[in-house]
Amino acid sequence: MTPTSPETSHDPRTGLPTTTARPTSRAELERTMARAVAAAPTLSRAAPRDRARWLHTVADAVEGARGDLVRLADWETALGTTRLQGELTRTVAQIRFYADEAAAGYFLRVEHDTADGQTPSLTRVNVPLGPVAVFGASNFPFAFGVLGHDAASALAAGCPVVVKAHPAHLGVSGKLFGLARAALAAAGAPDGALGIVHGFETGVELVKHTDLAAVAFTGSQTGGMALWRLANERPVVIPVFAEMGTVNPVVVTPLGATRIEEVARGLVASFTLGHGQYCTKPGLVLAPKGSGLAARVAGELERLAPEPVMLTRRIADGVRSGVEAMRDAGATVAVQLGGDGPGWSAPAAVLEAPLAEVRAGSRLLEEVFGAVVAVAEYDAPEQVLATLTQLPGALAATLFAGPGEDPWAVRWLETLSGKVGRVVLDDWTTGAPLARAQQHGGPWPSTTQPTATSIGARALERFVRPVAFQGFRDELLPPVARRSNPWSIPCRVGGDWIRAGAS
Amino acid sequence: MTPTSPETSHDPRTGLPTTTARPTSRAELERTMARAVAAAPTLSRAAPRDRARWLHTVADAVEGARGDLVRLADWETALGTTRLQGELTRTVAQIRFYADEAAAGYFLRVEHDTADGQTPSLTRVNVPLGPVAVFGASNFPFAFGVLGHDAASALAAGCPVVVKAHPAHLGVSGKLFGLARAALAAAGAPDGALGIVHGFETGVELVKHTDLAAVAFTGSQTGGMALWRLANERPVVIPVFAEMGTVNPVVVTPLGATRIEEVARGLVASFTLGHGQYCTKPGLVLAPKGSGLAARVAGELERLAPEPVMLTRRIADGVRSGVEAMRDAGATVAVQLGGDGPGWSAPAAVLEAPLAEVRAGSRLLEEVFGAVVAVAEYDAPEQVLATLTQLPGALAATLFAGPGEDPWAVRWLETLSGKVGRVVLDDWTTGAPLARAQQHGGPWPSTTQPTATSIGARALERFVRPVAFQGFRDELLPPVARRSNPWSIPCRVGGDWIRAGAS
Repeated sequence: MTPTSPETSHDPRTGLPTTTARPTSRAELERTMARAVAAAPTLSRAAPRDRARWLHTVADAVEGARGDLVRLADWETALGTTRLQGELTRTVAQIRFYADEAAAGYFLRVEHDTADGQTPSLTRVNVPLGPVAVFGASNFPFAFGVLGHDAASALAAGCPVVVKAHPAHLGVSGKLFGLARAALAAAGAPDGALGIVHGFETGVELVKHTDLAAVAFTGSQTGGMALWRLANERPVVIPVFAEMGTVNPVVVTPLGATRIEEVARGLVASFTLGHGQYCTKPGLVLAPKGSGLAARVAGELERLAPEPVMLTRRIADGVRSGVEAMRDAGATVAVQLGGDGPGWSAPAAVLEAPLAEVRAGSRLLEEVFGAVVAVAEYDAPEQVLATLTQLPGALAATLFAGPGEDPWAVRWLETLSGKVGRVVLDDWTTGAPLARAQQHGGPWPSTTQPTATSIGARALERFVRPVAFQGFRDELLPPVARRSNPWSIPCRVGGDWIRAGAS
Repeated sequence: MTPTSPETSHDPRTGLPTTTARPTSRAELERTMARAVAAAPTLSRAAPRDRARWLHTVADAVEGARGDLVRLADWETALGTTRLQGELTRTVAQIRFYADEAAAGYFLRVEHDTADGQTPSLTRVNVPLGPVAVFGASNFPFAFGVLGHDAASALAAGCPVVVKAHPAHLGVSGKLFGLARAALAAAGAPDGALGIVHGFETGVELVKHTDLAAVAFTGSQTGGMALWRLANERPVVIPVFAEMGTVNPVVVTPLGATRIEEVARGLVASFTLGHGQYCTKPGLVLAPKGSGLAARVAGELERLAPEPVMLTRRIADGVRSGVEAMRDAGATVAVQLGGDGPGWSAPAAVLEAPLAEVRAGSRLLEEVFGAVVAVAEYDAPEQVLATLTQLPGALAATLFAGPGEDPWAVRWLETLSGKVGRVVLDDWTTGAPLARAQQHGGPWPSTTQPTATSIGARALERFVRPVAFQGFRDELLPPVARRSNPWSIPCRVGGDWIRAGAS
């Protein structure tokens, strides 16, 4: 590993440094991985209820440090204390959610088939994969950070976690890690359950490490795809669950356009939320010609006059180059505001695009990570389906429809749902609600594994794989696979779900 | 696409040609894919019960042609009519199994969360991926052929299938395809539900085709990894579910060795089954020194004196070079029989290997696809765990243990189950029983997706992905996602499984 200079986080409002971290050395990485490997069997053997207890202790600790965490995060991200208070509340709820889902045990997908003379007895259960590397996102220092969705769901599933701290918020990362380590130790979790590393090259070495079993990543296409390629070059290839930003289309039907004022106001609120730094930000809107959506959105943006301050200098630069690329792709700027403030300031912009330019391969179908949106108006609804089929895979989409069985909504929904992981009716994609049935992840290139989600009950299932036990008697089996069901988890037995206590 | 010469299947007993097929042209491939694309929405929209009905019609047709199919398959594979009668029975059962699993609807994993003031309503369901390419195996002309596990589970899940016919049994493939096309048409399935192509280059073009959504493969490491790499180079990467042959270790505990005669007889029956051409063939056995297992196995092989005839010339050559490679890796031949007959004759062999040579990277830990096994004896059970940790991922493993809580069995099971998809107690891995709880697929390199199985209830889940619908009312949603549950499929609602009829 080549020696590297320290990483530094900055105050985006001023561009001044906040926190510095020395890159993790090769020897430290080896020690961290050795601790994770040593912890893996303990985590795997622990009853899901015990892991849930550990995680609730972590959630308590995060809640207890709320004030410090929010102040530190606001300094390092400029996302504002209101948003960060909400994100911290959400993050604590997430940790508890994955703890409770683990304890509920559905993710283990236990299934028993009884021997019947011809066929031997078979039991299939999900087992933890082993140490998981988590690469947190820049835009959610809490919700996709050191203790975010990926880390909490991996721990809940029974895997040790090694976090690569995001360089944009080293202070928050270090603080969260310290809280969690202490809480896990106090709760009785093994020492290696959670580790942390710093530095770009160390992150690369982490993904290449023999003992690593999986990678979870939230962020840009560039970052996620690089990790995916790296993992595919390992002698033993491991899964990479990369959830990456996409354009997240919004489609307004002719009937949906009857409330175009509401759509315009909602769109501006959504695409400027967190300064446009949401992987679920709506980036492209199709609306009927004559609805005047582009002009209304431009007017609403001017009224609000946001002054985006981005998480990093690179992100701020990316907003400017992204708007240029959209212009090169045939869009015109309806309004562009701000971007000349101190620190990592960047503009907010509304662009208008001819529908004919919204086609496969166009830059208009790629994310610009910032408060930027393109509006394309269609002459007749018959044109829309052809445009929808050109869309690349995305995390989410919105459909604004009329009341009842809006005929265009029904026709477009099938195509839209073939392109995304989540379709929202008459509301916005930003802020994926925390719920069991949530799906945050869609077809390539929104994720590297279209069956994976980084939010919701199935998030745990990324970090387990099935093992079948054939012809075993209970006393040799781990508790999860015993027909006596000591953990009282739901089982499918002979084709039917049994809530608990199968025998 | 470069023009290629016709493919030819052979009678392995004589080496004489049986059936010839012209490679599918680029234009024919385009037409086949266009039909699959056109059929996809109909398949996807069809109620699982309707797809089940189509598949039962196909199963009836296969059963109705039993005599012809078995004769043709025996001519092209030399697997013998007894085995092929059994395989055909199993294949018909498989098609019905996936049909019934589709109708049961568990694979759709429908989950509803109700709006609660803070959180909007969310429903997540699995939707079919779209056209699936199926590359059948050489060694199971029925069970992993044109209508094998992959094709039947993909159709059941709602995906059109395009089969790349295996060149070793073109006659059987053509016959099965003709039967299935006619049966599907008679049952009312769309025309493009099932297609077939021939030729190596056409298979490559199929995997690269824009409209393809997934690949299922059963066969060698070389073939599966090549398809996986090919799919990873696509502009839109698609999942490859490759299930590949592995060494499938057998471990005999000191207590298990009390019945070493039974183990020796069972081992020879297992590793010579189908002339050793099972991806689940036991290839390496660890047994206590003094059990005399190697000598007993050699004696039993001499008594049976099998005369293996392999499926293809390449496979027969691979047996010879595989035995050589094992010798180069430190094993010695205890007995080697046959291999000098006509056609694709190959030897059967038992080798002895020093335990010290059974280590990561050794050729002793790779599959030899044929009736070849290596026996390594351990001095003390304390040595075994170190050897087990060196094993690469495998499809399955066997543990021969003593009665009750055999302490070594308990200790080794955890490590073994971390290496494989299925662990068998006191029995053999060959012939994965058809059961809901079956898991056929394990860690890399036994499969390219460790969470996938090509046998059992979860086989269907390879060909679907989750989509969440947020804030929708029933009338806009496809039937699968409606709270009125018109298909009466099981749902998870508010964290509990409801058998059917959630509202």
